[in-house]
Amino acid sequence: MGRGLDLKTDVAALTADLVDVPSVSREEKQLADLVEQALRAYPHLAVDRDGDAVVARTRFGRAERVVLAGHIDTVPIADNLPSRLDADGVLWGCGTSDMKAGVAVQLRLAATLEDANRDLTYVFYDAEEIAAEFNGLKRLVERHPDWLAGDFAVLMEPTGGRVDGGCQGTLRVRVETTGRRAHSARSWLGENAIHKAAPILARLAAYEPRRVEIDGLTYPEGLNAVMIEGGHAGNVIPDTCAVTVNYRFSPDQSEAEALDRVRGVFEGFDVVLTDSAPGALPGLSHPAAAAFVDAIGTAPAAKEAWTDVARFSALGIPAVNYGPGDPTLAHTREEHVEVAAIREAERKLTAWLTG
Amino acid sequence: MGRGLDLKTDVAALTADLVDVPSVSREEKQLADLVEQALRAYPHLAVDRDGDAVVARTRFGRAERVVLAGHIDTVPIADNLPSRLDADGVLWGCGTSDMKAGVAVQLRLAATLEDANRDLTYVFYDAEEIAAEFNGLKRLVERHPDWLAGDFAVLMEPTGGRVDGGCQGTLRVRVETTGRRAHSARSWLGENAIHKAAPILARLAAYEPRRVEIDGLTYPEGLNAVMIEGGHAGNVIPDTCAVTVNYRFSPDQSEAEALDRVRGVFEGFDVVLTDSAPGALPGLSHPAAAAFVDAIGTAPAAKEAWTDVARFSALGIPAVNYGPGDPTLAHTREEHVEVAAIREAERKLTAWLTG
Repeated sequence: MGRGLDLKTDVAALTADLVDVPSVSREEKQLADLVEQALRAYPHLAVDRDGDAVVARTRFGRAERVVLAGHIDTVPIADNLPSRLDADGVLWGCGTSDMKAGVAVQLRLAATLEDANRDLTYVFYDAEEIAAEFNGLKRLVERHPDWLAGDFAVLMEPTGGRVDGGCQGTLRVRVETTGRRAHSARSWLGENAIHKAAPILARLAAYEPRRVEIDGLTYPEGLNAVMIEGGHAGNVIPDTCAVTVNYRFSPDQSEAEALDRVRGVFEGFDVVLTDSAPGALPGLSHPAAAAFVDAIGTAPAAKEAWTDVARFSALGIPAVNYGPGDPTLAHTREEHVEVAAIREAERKLTAWLTG
Repeated sequence: MGRGLDLKTDVAALTADLVDVPSVSREEKQLADLVEQALRAYPHLAVDRDGDAVVARTRFGRAERVVLAGHIDTVPIADNLPSRLDADGVLWGCGTSDMKAGVAVQLRLAATLEDANRDLTYVFYDAEEIAAEFNGLKRLVERHPDWLAGDFAVLMEPTGGRVDGGCQGTLRVRVETTGRRAHSARSWLGENAIHKAAPILARLAAYEPRRVEIDGLTYPEGLNAVMIEGGHAGNVIPDTCAVTVNYRFSPDQSEAEALDRVRGVFEGFDVVLTDSAPGALPGLSHPAAAAFVDAIGTAPAAKEAWTDVARFSALGIPAVNYGPGDPTLAHTREEHVEVAAIREAERKLTAWLTG
């Protein structure tokens, strides 16, 4: 890639071009430069940049604005670059599925849709594949929420071409007990903190998780101990025990409401919040989203795992995941994407935005 | 200590002499040499040696044989050598209480009792203060059980001059649960091993430990979780959980009986034995022991913590702990012993063995 990116080329060729610019997390500068430079060539786009994130917005003057977002970084290269297109129309290489195919679709739409039935915001961001503190979308939410404004967002992560609506929220708490240390040969002088944790586990085992329906999608919750630790040595009555509980909650609840529910379950125990991330409403009842689901033409599903779509929730923007590529191939040495799937995504999104 | 040990000197001076020969565990050779050499000077003693353990036996031809045992090693020196006798008659230094005062009493009895109402076996052994695999008494039990034969044993560890009868046994098991891993966002695909541990903790919390009376002494048992661990990461349904349980059991039960009881408590769960050590019966109903308790003149108590007296149990010999010095000072920088207490122990044992 000595030259710039050619956004007028075929979307599969563009995907290969993007894959062949290595962009492991925190090393996205070269690719961000190319993306910015390519977009600036189009007068219908207003282009902004923050670090290695690039945002391009149309000013068509439409009533609705749709955000199409994707990360440009990849996990570390696993001896799977440069890209390779095989005879069956499959493109192999690091980042093909997760998610340079989606980014190629974004770039093609940005270049080709000089007019559309909705205003469009294209977000290309860095550092999605590493710790949240580095996440480029998180940084944009904090520094430039106005760049992200819109009525509906599509995060173009690989979903196998399915619409995955919203996502569950997640929070973790430590539920703790305390006791009094003693030599285990004289256990009556102590107070066993592990024994005191018995009701914590009993309540978890008995808990009936909610199943919440939103916009026709079902979000099954989960309340689970993910870690437990207690004890010091084989001959000491333990004075502390801590159960780490992960609550995956439906996006009908805020983080605060979810925490209240967890505190209720563990009434009488010390509950310490460790970390928390909000869910995201699917927003499928929004007209733009309904039209989107129609255009894609497959039944939407609830997204279970937490994803970056939730960051749009913080801005009040309903969001879904939709993109070419098999999500189970992400982060594998055998990562690949079918060219036909990339073209289908481009075609369906173009139809939605111009129909 | 350029010269040999003088066993005819006062017991407090002899204690100071012993303290001033450093003998941290596994560095007992010099002291063992001195002990062996001193004992060999007495024709009424048959002296044997194995490694740095020395055993001296009388051949008075009495109906009963009593074993007096003590370890000659100490914990590491904590800037508390050489010994120092203060104006209040307190001897300070590493090993004063634990247990060179007791060893000095043994040596004095060995030298002075050229005849006695019972035959006597004096055992001086190495490496009590470190991992059991190095324990000199354990080695003697395995290699030379005949050297240790007797009707009753007194282990001269510091007890503050009280007779501590027998000791509890101890065993540890891991009570384990297994499940199936899954991402915690899709917890219904997994099986939570920590939740499955709820009944283990509930049974522990509800367990009523036995209190067993033997020879007038009460042994209160204890069944306690000492460690719990489970879980892999904050977003994974755990597939294993293990509770380590320590059972301190009365010496009326064998190790096998105690393990059976624990298996009964955790019926339905995997119970894996980690380690086990038998208890020791106090043997206070034995005539030699009854006479001993009379001679000491203070009410005996049940020994709670596991001690080396249990090694005599393996040979069918009831045993007690009795010695000068405050056990709570053992292993402290401020370790010390009152000269009066050492003299009292020598006087009482002499009375018992010559009365």
